Amino acid sequence: MLVKKEKFCVNSYSFKNSDKTIPLEIGYETYGTLNQAKNNVILVCHYFTGTSHAAGKYTDADQLPGWWDALIGPRKPIDTDKYFVISSDSLSNINCYNPNVITTGPASINPQTGKEYGLDFPIFTLHDVVHLQKMLLNSLGIKRLAAVIGPSMGGLQAFIWGRLFPEAVEKIISVVATPMVTPFVLMVPNQLGIDAIKSDPNWNNGNYYGKTAPREGLLNAFKVLLMITRTDHWADTSFGRKFADPEFINYSDPRKSFSGKYLIETEVEKIVIDRMKFFDANSYMYIAKANALYDLAEPGETLEQALAKITPPTLMIIDESDLIFNVRQAKIAEKFLPNARTAYYNSGNGHLSCLFDHQLFGEHIRTFLKGSSR
Amino acid sequence: MLVKKEKFCVNSYSFKNSDKTIPLEIGYETYGTLNQAKNNVILVCHYFTGTSHAAGKYTDADQLPGWWDALIGPRKPIDTDKYFVISSDSLSNINCYNPNVITTGPASINPQTGKEYGLDFPIFTLHDVVHLQKMLLNSLGIKRLAAVIGPSMGGLQAFIWGRLFPEAVEKIISVVATPMVTPFVLMVPNQLGIDAIKSDPNWNNGNYYGKTAPREGLLNAFKVLLMITRTDHWADTSFGRKFADPEFINYSDPRKSFSGKYLIETEVEKIVIDRMKFFDANSYMYIAKANALYDLAEPGETLEQALAKITPPTLMIIDESDLIFNVRQAKIAEKFLPNARTAYYNSGNGHLSCLFDHQLFGEHIRTFLKGSSR
Repeated sequence: MLVKKEKFCVNSYSFKNSDKTIPLEIGYETYGTLNQAKNNVILVCHYFTGTSHAAGKYTDADQLPGWWDALIGPRKPIDTDKYFVISSDSLSNINCYNPNVITTGPASINPQTGKEYGLDFPIFTLHDVVHLQKMLLNSLGIKRLAAVIGPSMGGLQAFIWGRLFPEAVEKIISVVATPMVTPFVLMVPNQLGIDAIKSDPNWNNGNYYGKTAPREGLLNAFKVLLMITRTDHWADTSFGRKFADPEFINYSDPRKSFSGKYLIETEVEKIVIDRMKFFDANSYMYIAKANALYDLAEPGETLEQALAKITPPTLMIIDESDLIFNVRQAKIAEKFLPNARTAYYNSGNGHLSCLFDHQLFGEHIRTFLKGSSR
Repeated sequence: MLVKKEKFCVNSYSFKNSDKTIPLEIGYETYGTLNQAKNNVILVCHYFTGTSHAAGKYTDADQLPGWWDALIGPRKPIDTDKYFVISSDSLSNINCYNPNVITTGPASINPQTGKEYGLDFPIFTLHDVVHLQKMLLNSLGIKRLAAVIGPSMGGLQAFIWGRLFPEAVEKIISVVATPMVTPFVLMVPNQLGIDAIKSDPNWNNGNYYGKTAPREGLLNAFKVLLMITRTDHWADTSFGRKFADPEFINYSDPRKSFSGKYLIETEVEKIVIDRMKFFDANSYMYIAKANALYDLAEPGETLEQALAKITPPTLMIIDESDLIFNVRQAKIAEKFLPNARTAYYNSGNGHLSCLFDHQLFGEHIRTFLKGSSR
């Protein structure tokens, strides 16, 4: 499946928590064909470090397809023979230097100054991300979604759709996400990541563009993220207590010095460093902040009351080994969501199983999409 | 129960992983009375941020007693009417500026230079901590322990006793500890804490004595530690998503700026800052390193073979909500420990329940100590 990036522009966007009004642009991709009634649309929302490239390849030469290609395509659980699938880039996408990502964030040029926004970029929430998606769909003449789905931060967005636009969504599917960011999750990974970046002297209050980027702070933020999205079992079976490959940078015996490393350290660092050329530290902070601020309850409303307004049929898919969005939260949410059920699986590998262990939950998605919606 | 600190000195100690030989001193406390046969001794080993002050008060005016006072004392689970209890300070104790702690570590003066060791202090392991305890007991004429017990890092030490000196230990009790530091735990909290400190420019490769200490790095290390020793449930029920008290430093609305804080952030910071005056960052790094390096297997030996050598009757007490030493590890360990059983409780509050939820496990300790040892 060959795909291409499209661009959606808003000349003047007003943020939920800010008085600032600025122009925005985001990228999006589509898979499958929009039917004449425009009622076969599934919106796929991406995860924290993800992009709109959810499926397919740009060219046959691409090494890897989009991140949920195992689930999106002809006859796959999100079947593009039947559905028209849209996936858009978040605001302040962390991969903002990836040429295939179109996003507006702190690394974008502020047209009023001709320089990067840095910390002048408005602090936004995932509600803003969803409002932009709604504007994008309106621009395409799409009034109602057959479903909204996403893993992790994508699932959080799916719940916002249900809270803000219950009449515009036929079905909600959240994968490894509950409709709440608990104070623990607010801290790990979100606020701890922000703290790690801020503590890097190169961060310089967000003014590092054209200078040395806060690479070490960003690396430390990602290490926290990568660990909490995995598990003890995953680390044991992937690396054990082996020492790092001596050919890797900075290697020395970890028993002898603080620069000596174990294999798990260098492997986690490799994952980050391989992708770091596309990453921006301020963008990481803003998207982590958007996750920390996630709260479905409007002022004067309890979370229970907010959940009660999410009336569309909802499927929560939870990995029992997930350290972020866990079984305890799912059971609380299920009590208050009027039309939800939870499907559990246990990868043993934690939160990030949503990207690798499709075989454990893909059929739940297929079955739920097939079922009658009411 | 009024107690006092004693000092144990070694003129020349040879470390397990280092060629360096240096003089060491550590503090210790005792509770109860040593019997004539010297066979009523229980060694209590402290946790990561703990000290030898496990029970009692130094004066009646002390606000709080030692950290396991609920468990150690007359007619308590570790009954000082019957047992003579010893508790000693670790090497490189994090609380090295606490006047009631006696420890040798990177903040100590190197007699050869007249300056703090800094990173010239040898990297040590918990095996060295146990060897020092053995030397201390030898100096008191104690050849054999009725039991060795400790929570968390203290439990890790108890297993080392069983591995190195099985004939010198009648019973082993580990609370919220298994006999392994898995690669996940190596990383969280240990290596991530080291990374956080190293990334603070004030750390200056460990040469900060007499200058500005790497306070922010140490604070970030402690935040990782405090979160992973707690749980989602704990954070929910303790703080929810409340904003910080506006009277706390740096307060502003977290929706509006990156300096705005939630209550959980300021409360976690308060816990650390209240104790920070006693803390040393290098000492934190060394003790975190000792935990990361923890491995009962000697060269050429598997973990299974090492565990098989721990022959004394062993009680592992595990909190099912613990994110560090978890049920999965306990089940693996139990398979290979020849004489162990596990008692489970579920505080919902995570690893740190070992200091606060005594009522959930204290009777397991009492019963196991009463039972016949073979």
